[in-house]
Amino acid sequence: MGSRMASHLAKNDVDLTIYNRTPINNKTFENNNVIITDSLQSAVKHADIVFSMLSTPEAVAEVFFGKINTLSIMKKNAVWVDCSTVNPSFSLKAFKEAKRHDIRFLDAPVAGSKPQAASAELVFFIGGEKEIIKDVEPYLDMMGKKVLRIGEIGKGASFKMLVNIMLAQSMLIFSEAVLLGDKMGISKEFLLDLLPNLVVSAPFTKFKAEAIKNDNYDVQFPLEWMYKDLHLATLTAYEQNQPLYLANLTKEIYAEATKNGMGRLDFSAIYKYLDK
Amino acid sequence: MGSRMASHLAKNDVDLTIYNRTPINNKTFENNNVIITDSLQSAVKHADIVFSMLSTPEAVAEVFFGKINTLSIMKKNAVWVDCSTVNPSFSLKAFKEAKRHDIRFLDAPVAGSKPQAASAELVFFIGGEKEIIKDVEPYLDMMGKKVLRIGEIGKGASFKMLVNIMLAQSMLIFSEAVLLGDKMGISKEFLLDLLPNLVVSAPFTKFKAEAIKNDNYDVQFPLEWMYKDLHLATLTAYEQNQPLYLANLTKEIYAEATKNGMGRLDFSAIYKYLDK
Amino acid sequence: MGSRMASHLAKNDVDLTIYNRTPINNKTFENNNVIITDSLQSAVKHADIVFSMLSTPEAVAEVFFGKINTLSIMKKNAVWVDCSTVNPSFSLKAFKEAKRHDIRFLDAPVAGSKPQAASAELVFFIGGEKEIIKDVEPYLDMMGKKVLRIGEIGKGASFKMLVNIMLAQSMLIFSEAVLLGDKMGISKEFLLDLLPNLVVSAPFTKFKAEAIKNDNYDVQFPLEWMYKDLHLATLTAYEQNQPLYLANLTKEIYAEATKNGMGRLDFSAIYKYLDK
Amino acid sequence: MGSRMASHLAKNDVDLTIYNRTPINNKTFENNNVIITDSLQSAVKHADIVFSMLSTPEAVAEVFFGKINTLSIMKKNAVWVDCSTVNPSFSLKAFKEAKRHDIRFLDAPVAGSKPQAASAELVFFIGGEKEIIKDVEPYLDMMGKKVLRIGEIGKGASFKMLVNIMLAQSMLIFSEAVLLGDKMGISKEFLLDLLPNLVVSAPFTKFKAEAIKNDNYDVQFPLEWMYKDLHLATLTAYEQNQPLYLANLTKEIYAEATKNGMGRLDFSAIYKYLDK
Repeated sequence: MGSRMASHLAKNDVDLTIYNRTPINNKTFENNNVIITDSLQSAVKHADIVFSMLSTPEAVAEVFFGKINTLSIMKKNAVWVDCSTVNPSFSLKAFKEAKRHDIRFLDAPVAGSKPQAASAELVFFIGGEKEIIKDVEPYLDMMGKKVLRIGEIGKGASFKMLVNIMLAQSMLIFSEAVLLGDKMGISKEFLLDLLPNLVVSAPFTKFKAEAIKNDNYDVQFPLEWMYKDLHLATLTAYEQNQPLYLANLTKEIYAEATKNGMGRLDFSAIYKYLDK
Repeated sequence: MGSRMASHLAKNDVDLTIYNRTPINNKTFENNNVIITDSLQSAVKHADIVFSMLSTPEAVAEVFFGKINTLSIMKKNAVWVDCSTVNPSFSLKAFKEAKRHDIRFLDAPVAGSKPQAASAELVFFIGGEKEIIKDVEPYLDMMGKKVLRIGEIGKGASFKMLVNIMLAQSMLIFSEAVLLGDKMGISKEFLLDLLPNLVVSAPFTKFKAEAIKNDNYDVQFPLEWMYKDLHLATLTAYEQNQPLYLANLTKEIYAEATKNGMGRLDFSAIYKYLDK
Repeated sequence: MGSRMASHLAKNDVDLTIYNRTPINNKTFENNNVIITDSLQSAVKHADIVFSMLSTPEAVAEVFFGKINTLSIMKKNAVWVDCSTVNPSFSLKAFKEAKRHDIRFLDAPVAGSKPQAASAELVFFIGGEKEIIKDVEPYLDMMGKKVLRIGEIGKGASFKMLVNIMLAQSMLIFSEAVLLGDKMGISKEFLLDLLPNLVVSAPFTKFKAEAIKNDNYDVQFPLEWMYKDLHLATLTAYEQNQPLYLANLTKEIYAEATKNGMGRLDFSAIYKYLDK
Repeated sequence: MGSRMASHLAKNDVDLTIYNRTPINNKTFENNNVIITDSLQSAVKHADIVFSMLSTPEAVAEVFFGKINTLSIMKKNAVWVDCSTVNPSFSLKAFKEAKRHDIRFLDAPVAGSKPQAASAELVFFIGGEKEIIKDVEPYLDMMGKKVLRIGEIGKGASFKMLVNIMLAQSMLIFSEAVLLGDKMGISKEFLLDLLPNLVVSAPFTKFKAEAIKNDNYDVQFPLEWMYKDLHLATLTAYEQNQPLYLANLTKEIYAEATKNGMGRLDFSAIYKYLDK
């Protein structure tokens, strides 16, 4: 994800220093304005804005305020934009840590995976102060097609969680409809072509229908992460005493699929699980 | 529905005789090519094509092969296009009754309700023979934006059922997401504006979000009919031994809403029920 | 079932004529008071009371008022006690057919399977008139430990359905608890021994726990029949607009187990399905 | 609970010092062997065994190793038996705190509420070492009817959680069956009398059926605590990747009842909620 996002900054002549935990191919970034470094310190110490895109909250914690203490290296008043997918309470913690070092913080998880990152069609869900967003918005616009301020700190992560459980559930509804239709004697091909184009189906099912047709569940977003997000959402619902019937049941079906060894496939493999 | 559909045939100069079980306003149809009659017999006896749009299978049965035996009045080899929403096995029965009278039959339920009928944006889901469809397609094109042959007799009704349960479930997912988001501190207004425009939400939620904002649940499609369609789908799933987790649970929540007196509201009132 | 029930009448010196659709072993019934016949006609024509225990409503219909018309052979004013498990509306139909032939009718499904039949510990759930019950109660007492009048005709079958869905659901709760306990580090053996003896678990789980320990799912009551009973109960709940959350979800899990080839095992195999 | 339990120790001439956070009535304990004190310090400092029965883990923490540091007052090598209902990880923490003060620890939650405490019919679920149990078992036997060692430290609490979710779910199944039966025309009175005595219903439903008949939901175990236990169980299931369908759905129905203001009633009020 990160390199794809960076490529758009590079193309737009932004002065850019890139650091990746595992070394990356220099060839991708042959612009004069881009430096690739294997030293995190040199990557961040003069930066006005630091974008991070890491796989888990634990990784973010380690790099920014754990073993590697990036926050202590950064310039005072610089902005840290964390695009990683984390839970809302983690964003609050990151915000507090940043504040202790006089670093301004935004949580900015994205809708979209590798293809959207490559084509600069990400949508950013931002939690944080409007003035900070103003400073980084030009760069977000280069990497995505939409920048949405959801609310104060943590609300980007909250909204991302909602979006993910809608994905998980819509995928399941779609899968159950295709399988029932097939049993009623309507061809799968026909259903997979038609249903995603009707107003009753979430538009992302178009892409997933192709995956199903090709029996290709190469991971865009792993099923077991979806299971985790469903879990986090039901936790939040409990804390708020807000019933959440469908997400709870959906969670159990993703649990079964995970238990059956499908956790590392794309979450659209929930279709394959139901079709077993 | 019926009068809105007929108005497009009228505008296109189709020779048309209209019969409604309760008298309708002549003013709507002041074209020379339109006759309004209170005699069913005179409406159908010379017709090459008879379109019907009735509220329930029972009403269709009564009018076409029950107390009023329309099939026996119609011309041999005429076409009967039933646009009513019925269950697949009823369509098969209607087909057989029609055949006994040498009437050609299509089941042609529609996606869309009054607004789509008024703007000729219905989608027709057709079950029946291709040659018959060819004969009626020009007229369907006047009344809708798409004509889809799903398969042989009964498949139009089968597909309509799938579409409806996707509506019921997507509406519920959307409602639960908005309510949870609200509890997490994101404003309802914001969620109702944003979510329907993302690829994770079925596009029809755009219109329903407006209804929710205005607390206006005037009926487009009654909640209790959705409950019935969920019931019919789970019945079919049982007959096919096809698990259908989410639709079964969704059915029970619509059951509660119906029991709580919301059955005659639009099905989007499931939001209101959950927000009680 | 039937031969085990008959053995208790035999032991009590009741004059008895036995007919089975497939020939049975005479040795079991060497009492002087018992006649075994391969002629249905001779079995019923002089009988004051006819007990039937058949596998499905279809079989009952065939034998009593279908191809074989037992009702027309029976003596006027005789009593027909149907112990088969059928749906309530079938019992009503059987009652009407019996009435047409001046036969008095009771629906009398039982709680218990082969072991309870063998040890005369069945419980009879009766629908029908009190005076008729009085005439047959001495014989029911020989075959069972309790005779319960539930209400008028059909109520025996209604109550049996309730009892069965409680079995299906309690079995599932028990199975999920054992599997979760095992994952928490409490031994399965221990859980299977202890839980059924606590007031929180339906007492029948004692016997099923033994079956689970021995991985022996020889059929007492087939899982696929339980699936059917759950289906019938949810149908009834729909007709009554009574939400029935757990039974609906339980139905889908039995659906999965049936789809996975476990339908002909005992319904306690739902444990085995979840433990897969 | 605590005073009822203590009364059995008193009756058996155990030397006993009683401390309650709110003052209790001396009249209850007029035996010579009983001292009632308002000083926690004097209650525990010479004790060989300390039993605690508190309402929440937070209360236990406060009294034993928080603001009031009971553990530091107790004799070395004394035994602390915590009968409070807590989560497994809390028991592990209590064990470690006890160890630091050379106090031997057992987690010993009970099955049963006030009536069982009064009649010495509690069941103790113990986690901890066998030798320690041997030292306290004579006293547990005075207060309860059964002492069950479930496993090492924390397993008492784990098992209690299982028992509670079985209660929650069995209560729901029972309630749904009674309500459906009523809709089918079988009287509620009859169902409430009969069902709990059949092998298909958890025996505790006998007492709850009485409560329902009297519309008396005075709290034995609050509905909102049941909601919490269902939540904790689903959390554990997630950590173990063990699907738990029925408990998750049951949790949502208890969530609704809690949201509807029934959280402080007895958990059997889930019947009242469904009957609304």
